[in-house]
Amino acid sequence: MQTKEVHYSDYLRLDQILNAQVMESELQGAPAHDEMLFIIIHQAYELWFKQILFEIDSIAEIMGREIINDNSPELQTVVHRLGRIDTILKVAVHQIDILETMTPMDFLDFRDFLRPASGFQSWQFKITEAKLGLRFPERFGQEYYISQLRPEHITLIKSVEGKPSLLDLVNEWLERMPFFEQPEYWTGYEPLFPASGNKHPFWSDYSAIYASSLVEGETANRQPFENLFFGEESPTERRLSAKACRAALFIMLYRGYPLLQAPFRLLNNLLEIDEQLSTWRFRHVNMVTRMIGMRTGTGGSSGRGYLQGALDKHYIFREVAALSSYLIERRRLPRLSKELEERLGF
Amino acid sequence: MQTKEVHYSDYLRLDQILNAQVMESELQGAPAHDEMLFIIIHQAYELWFKQILFEIDSIAEIMGREIINDNSPELQTVVHRLGRIDTILKVAVHQIDILETMTPMDFLDFRDFLRPASGFQSWQFKITEAKLGLRFPERFGQEYYISQLRPEHITLIKSVEGKPSLLDLVNEWLERMPFFEQPEYWTGYEPLFPASGNKHPFWSDYSAIYASSLVEGETANRQPFENLFFGEESPTERRLSAKACRAALFIMLYRGYPLLQAPFRLLNNLLEIDEQLSTWRFRHVNMVTRMIGMRTGTGGSSGRGYLQGALDKHYIFREVAALSSYLIERRRLPRLSKELEERLGF
Amino acid sequence: MQTKEVHYSDYLRLDQILNAQVMESELQGAPAHDEMLFIIIHQAYELWFKQILFEIDSIAEIMGREIINDNSPELQTVVHRLGRIDTILKVAVHQIDILETMTPMDFLDFRDFLRPASGFQSWQFKITEAKLGLRFPERFGQEYYISQLRPEHITLIKSVEGKPSLLDLVNEWLERMPFFEQPEYWTGYEPLFPASGNKHPFWSDYSAIYASSLVEGETANRQPFENLFFGEESPTERRLSAKACRAALFIMLYRGYPLLQAPFRLLNNLLEIDEQLSTWRFRHVNMVTRMIGMRTGTGGSSGRGYLQGALDKHYIFREVAALSSYLIERRRLPRLSKELEERLGF
Amino acid sequence: MQTKEVHYSDYLRLDQILNAQVMESELQGAPAHDEMLFIIIHQAYELWFKQILFEIDSIAEIMGREIINDNSPELQTVVHRLGRIDTILKVAVHQIDILETMTPMDFLDFRDFLRPASGFQSWQFKITEAKLGLRFPERFGQEYYISQLRPEHITLIKSVEGKPSLLDLVNEWLERMPFFEQPEYWTGYEPLFPASGNKHPFWSDYSAIYASSLVEGETANRQPFENLFFGEESPTERRLSAKACRAALFIMLYRGYPLLQAPFRLLNNLLEIDEQLSTWRFRHVNMVTRMIGMRTGTGGSSGRGYLQGALDKHYIFREVAALSSYLIERRRLPRLSKELEERLGF
Repeated sequence: MQTKEVHYSDYLRLDQILNAQVMESELQGAPAHDEMLFIIIHQAYELWFKQILFEIDSIAEIMGREIINDNSPELQTVVHRLGRIDTILKVAVHQIDILETMTPMDFLDFRDFLRPASGFQSWQFKITEAKLGLRFPERFGQEYYISQLRPEHITLIKSVEGKPSLLDLVNEWLERMPFFEQPEYWTGYEPLFPASGNKHPFWSDYSAIYASSLVEGETANRQPFENLFFGEESPTERRLSAKACRAALFIMLYRGYPLLQAPFRLLNNLLEIDEQLSTWRFRHVNMVTRMIGMRTGTGGSSGRGYLQGALDKHYIFREVAALSSYLIERRRLPRLSKELEERLGF
Repeated sequence: MQTKEVHYSDYLRLDQILNAQVMESELQGAPAHDEMLFIIIHQAYELWFKQILFEIDSIAEIMGREIINDNSPELQTVVHRLGRIDTILKVAVHQIDILETMTPMDFLDFRDFLRPASGFQSWQFKITEAKLGLRFPERFGQEYYISQLRPEHITLIKSVEGKPSLLDLVNEWLERMPFFEQPEYWTGYEPLFPASGNKHPFWSDYSAIYASSLVEGETANRQPFENLFFGEESPTERRLSAKACRAALFIMLYRGYPLLQAPFRLLNNLLEIDEQLSTWRFRHVNMVTRMIGMRTGTGGSSGRGYLQGALDKHYIFREVAALSSYLIERRRLPRLSKELEERLGF
Repeated sequence: MQTKEVHYSDYLRLDQILNAQVMESELQGAPAHDEMLFIIIHQAYELWFKQILFEIDSIAEIMGREIINDNSPELQTVVHRLGRIDTILKVAVHQIDILETMTPMDFLDFRDFLRPASGFQSWQFKITEAKLGLRFPERFGQEYYISQLRPEHITLIKSVEGKPSLLDLVNEWLERMPFFEQPEYWTGYEPLFPASGNKHPFWSDYSAIYASSLVEGETANRQPFENLFFGEESPTERRLSAKACRAALFIMLYRGYPLLQAPFRLLNNLLEIDEQLSTWRFRHVNMVTRMIGMRTGTGGSSGRGYLQGALDKHYIFREVAALSSYLIERRRLPRLSKELEERLGF
Repeated sequence: MQTKEVHYSDYLRLDQILNAQVMESELQGAPAHDEMLFIIIHQAYELWFKQILFEIDSIAEIMGREIINDNSPELQTVVHRLGRIDTILKVAVHQIDILETMTPMDFLDFRDFLRPASGFQSWQFKITEAKLGLRFPERFGQEYYISQLRPEHITLIKSVEGKPSLLDLVNEWLERMPFFEQPEYWTGYEPLFPASGNKHPFWSDYSAIYASSLVEGETANRQPFENLFFGEESPTERRLSAKACRAALFIMLYRGYPLLQAPFRLLNNLLEIDEQLSTWRFRHVNMVTRMIGMRTGTGGSSGRGYLQGALDKHYIFREVAALSSYLIERRRLPRLSKELEERLGF
C-alpha cells in the first residue's frame, strides 16, 4: 500500500521523544538522580493528556451534530471513547505510585532549580477541564491561575471556554430526547395519580411516587426535586436544564430498554471520568502533602492548598451524579405504554 | 508430622464461610439479585479487617517491648507487616470497583430491607482505627457513633482506646532513640553556628540552616518549627512529643545510614497506611454519592456526610507526615561525627 | 417494610465468618504467624468464587431461554454480569500481591502441617471452569484430578459437566441469529463476486475478500478459514459450530449497528474473562515457583507443573478469540442491504 | 540559585514531545482514529524504558564497585531503585488495559500502513533485557532478531551484551560475601553432623538437614542441590557460581539479621522485576492473540509466536528464583556462632 518502509524508531519519532529530557540540576552543576524521573513522569502525563484531548474532540464533534443517527455507530463510538478516557485516567492515577518512589529528601535535591515552574502550568490539563465543562468562574484560585499561566496559554484556554463544552453538548442532547413531546407514545399510558399543575402525566405520577418514597430525614429532598425537574427558570449557575434533568432521570430509570442502553452508559461514563479525575487530584494532594508538607510549591502556590480547593470544586458532572437522589425503586416505576415500549426496543 | 489428613474444605471451614450469605430481600419475598454481591463484598472486607487487626496486634506486641533488639529481626518484622497491611489496603481500595458494578437502581431494589443496618456498624473497622491511634475526641460524628453501635461494641472499642495505640508506641520508641543523650557520639562534631538556648549543638545548627532555607511565603513556618521540635510543653492534642519529632526528623534526614533504614521504612509505611485508608474513604464517599446522592444512608446518617467528615479528620499519622515541611537539602546537612557515623553503620 | 431491625453483624453473619480461622500450626503447637494470612486469603477467594458462580448461574438461566427478547433488558443483564465477573477476577489477580508478602521461609513454617490439602481441592473453582465450558477431556492432569478431590466433589463437578455450559449456550444463541436465513433481508444486497458453492452470497463475497487480504506468510490461513466457517462436519472437539462462527464473525464485523452492540460486548466480555482467568493462573504459577521452586506441592503435585499445564490448556473461549484471525478491514466490508440495516437499527 | 526562570512547557520540552505524533494513516490519506492511541502508548512505553535504563545504569555503577561500603547508603540505593523499576513495570503492565480499548477491527484500519515496523524493533527494550542479563544465545528467535533490527541497533545491543550485566555483577557481589572464608566467625560454631568432603562445616550440616527434609517425590532434588551448591565446575550456561548460590541461600535463610536485610531485599527485587517483565510479556501475548489471532505481525513475525517463545525463555533471574527449592524450615536452621551473629548485627 505504501511505497516506503516504516521503521519503529522513525514512526514513533524516538529521536525527538528520547532526547527531550534535560535536567536542570545538571545544567546547574549539581546533578540530582531523581530529576530524570520527575521529567519523564510529567512527559508521560502530557502524552496522555494529548490523547485524552484527542478523544474529547472526536466525542464533541459527534455530540455536536444536530441529529445523532440511532442507526449508526455514532453514539456507541462516544460511549466507547469515554470509556477509553476512563481507562487512561485509571492508569494516570496508578502512575502516581511511581512518583511516590521519590522521597521528600530526593525531591529537595533539585526542587529549587525548578522555580517558578509548576505543574499548575500544564495548559493541556486546564484545557481538558475546560473542554469537559469547567468554566472560569467555577475554578478554584482564579487569580493564581492568571498569574501563573503564559498569556498565550490563557488565550488558548479562554477560547476553549468560549465554545460549547462536552457538558453543554450533553445538556443539549438530553433536551432533544423526544418522547415526552410526542403524544403518540402516551396514548396508552394509564396515569396513577391525578395530573398536578402542567406536568406531563408521567411526571405527575413520578413526582407523587417519589414524595411517598422519602423516609424520615429525607423529606427536605422534595422541594429540590421539584425545582430541579420542573423549575420554570433554572438558576444561571445550573448546567443542566430542567428538561435535560428529566431526560437523564428517565434514561436512568428505564435503562433496561435497548434504546436507552447507550445513553445510560454515556451518562455513567461521564461520572466515571469525574471520579477518576477527582481520585487523581486526591492522590495528588496526598502526595504533595507528603512531599513538601506546608512549604510552598515551586510555583509559589500554597502547595496543597490549590489542589485541595480544586478537589472540592472541580467536579464537572456533579449535576448528573446528583440525580441519583431522585430515583425510585424499580418495582414502583410507572408502566410505560406499549407504543413507547416498542419505540424503545428494536 | 500430624496424624490426621487435612482437606482444603475442612481446613478453610468452607461450610461455615459459604453458608453465611442470607439475603434479606429473599426473606422478605422480593429477591434482589445484587444483594448477594452486597453481602459477599462486605464479608470479604471483614475478613481483611480481621487480618489487618491480626497484623497490628503482632506489631504492637513488638513495638511495646522495652528494648527492641537491633540484632534481631524484630524491627524488620514490624516493617514487613506494616508493608503487608499497606498491600491489603490497596486491594481493599481496588475492591470498590466491584461494588461500583452495582448501579443506584440495583441498590434500591433491596436497600429498604437493610434498615437500620449500616457499614458504620463495622466494629472491626472502628477498632482498626483505634488500634492505629485514632482517639474518641478526634472522631467525626461522635454522637452518631454512640447511637449506632451496640453497647458491647462500644465497650470493646473503648477498651482498645484505653490502651496504648500504635501511634503511642511509635512516639515512645522514637523518644527512646539514644544518640542525642550520649555525649560520646558528639565529641568530634563541629558546630556550624553558635549554640542557641539550651538546644543540642546539632539542633542549633539545624535550626539556623532551616531558617535560612525558607523562601518567600514560607517564613511563617519558622515558629511552628521551633514549637514542634523544641517547645517545652506539647499542646495536649499533640500525639508526638518534641523529642519524638526530633528523632523522626533525624531518621528522615540520615536514612542513608544502615541503622536508620528500617526506622525510615517504618515511618514511611505508617504514611502509606494513612494514605490508603484515606483513599479508601475517598472512593467510598464518591461511591456513596453516586449510589444514594443526598438521600440518607440505611443507618439514618446523612450518607456521604459522615464519610466526608471522617475523610478530613481521620488522618492518624498526620503529625508524621507534617515533618516533611521541616526537611532541608541533603547538601546542607550538618556532618555527623565519625563516632556517630560508626554507630549508625554495621 | 420489615418488622425486625437489621444489624450489620447479624446480617453479615460475622460470628460465623470471623470464627472460621483455625490455624493448623497452632493446633500442632508451633504457631506460625503467616498461616492466618494463608487461611484468610483462601477464604476471600472462595467468597468471590461463590459470587462468580452466582452470576454465572443467573447468566446461564437467561442464555438458556429459547427466545431472548430484544425488547427486554435480558441481554444487557447478561453483558453487565459478565462485566462484573471480569471486575471480580481483576481484583482476584491483584489479591495475589497480598500472598506474595509471604516469603518462602515464612511458608515453610507451616507448610508441612497442611499436607495433603491443596488449592487444587477448591471444588468451587473447578465448577466455575466447568460451568463456563471446560470439559473433563480438556482438563490438564485428569488423573491427579481424580486422586485429589473427594468423591462428592467429583460427583458435583461431573453433574455440572453434564449440563450445557455457558459456552454451549453461547454456541446455541449464536446459531439462532436469524439474518442469513431470512431472504427478505437480502433482496437489496448486491454481490461483489460470483457465488461459490452453496455459500450465502454474503459469505461468498467475504470469503473472496478475506483471501485477497492475506499478505505473505498468511496464505496458510485460507484453508482453516474455509473449514471453520463452512465445513460440513465440525470436528467433534470443536465447541462452536460453523454456523455459530459465522454469526460471531458477523457480530464483530458489524458491531456498529445498535442491535449488534450488546452481542459484541457479550463476546468481548467472554474473552476478558478468559484473559483474567489465564492471568490469574499465570501469576499463580509464578508465585508458586517463587514459593516452593521445584519442591512438590502440599497435595503431592509437581507444584508448578499442574498450574503451567492448566495455563496452556484451559482457555475456555479460545475459539471465540481465534475469530480475530478472520476479520477484514472495515473499508472492505460488503455493504448490507437497506432492509437489513433497518433491522439492525431501532 | 539560577538566573533564568523555568517554565513548565520549556522545562519538559513539550513542543518536542507533543509534536511527535504523525499518523501514517493520515499521511496515506485514510485517517484512522485509533492510530493516535497506538502512537502515544508506544511513546509512553519508550519514555518508561528510558527511565528504567537510567535506573539500571545507576545501579550497575554501584554494584560494579569493588567494595560496597556497608556504612554508606549505596546498597540501600540499589534496593530502592530496583524497587522503583518494579513499580514502573507494574504501571507498564496496567497500561496494556489502554491498548485493549482498541478492538481488532479498529487496528485493522491502519495496520497495513505500518509494515514492516514492529514493536520488536524497540531497541531500548532489547537493551533493557541485555543490561539485566539476557545474553544473545539465550534469546528466543535469534535469526528474526538479526533480520528485524537496524545494524546500528544490533551493534548497540551487542556492545551492551559485551559488558557485565546486572546478573553478572550480582554474581560477583555474592561471591564477595566474606563470612565463610573468615575462620574467626566460626570458632564457636557447633557442628551438628560430621563434616562431609571438603565442605565447610556449616554446609555439611545444611546438606544433611536438607536431605532429611525432602518428602516423597522430592528426593530427586538432592543431586541438583549438591551440584548447584558444591559442584566443582559450573556448567558454562550457569549464571550463578556455586559460591554465589551459597551466599544467596545464606542471605535468604538468615535474612532476619540486620546486615542481611538489604541483600535479601535486593535479591527479592530482582525476582519482582522478572515477574513483572514476564507478566508484561504474558499480557502482551494475550493481547496480540486477541488483536491479530493467527495472522502475521506487521514485522512479518508469526505474531504471538515470538512473544510466547520469549515468555518461556527470557526469565533473567531464574537461577535466583530456583534457590527457593533448597530452603529448609527456620526451626531446623543451624545456629550461628556468637561472633557471626554480632557481625551480622550492628
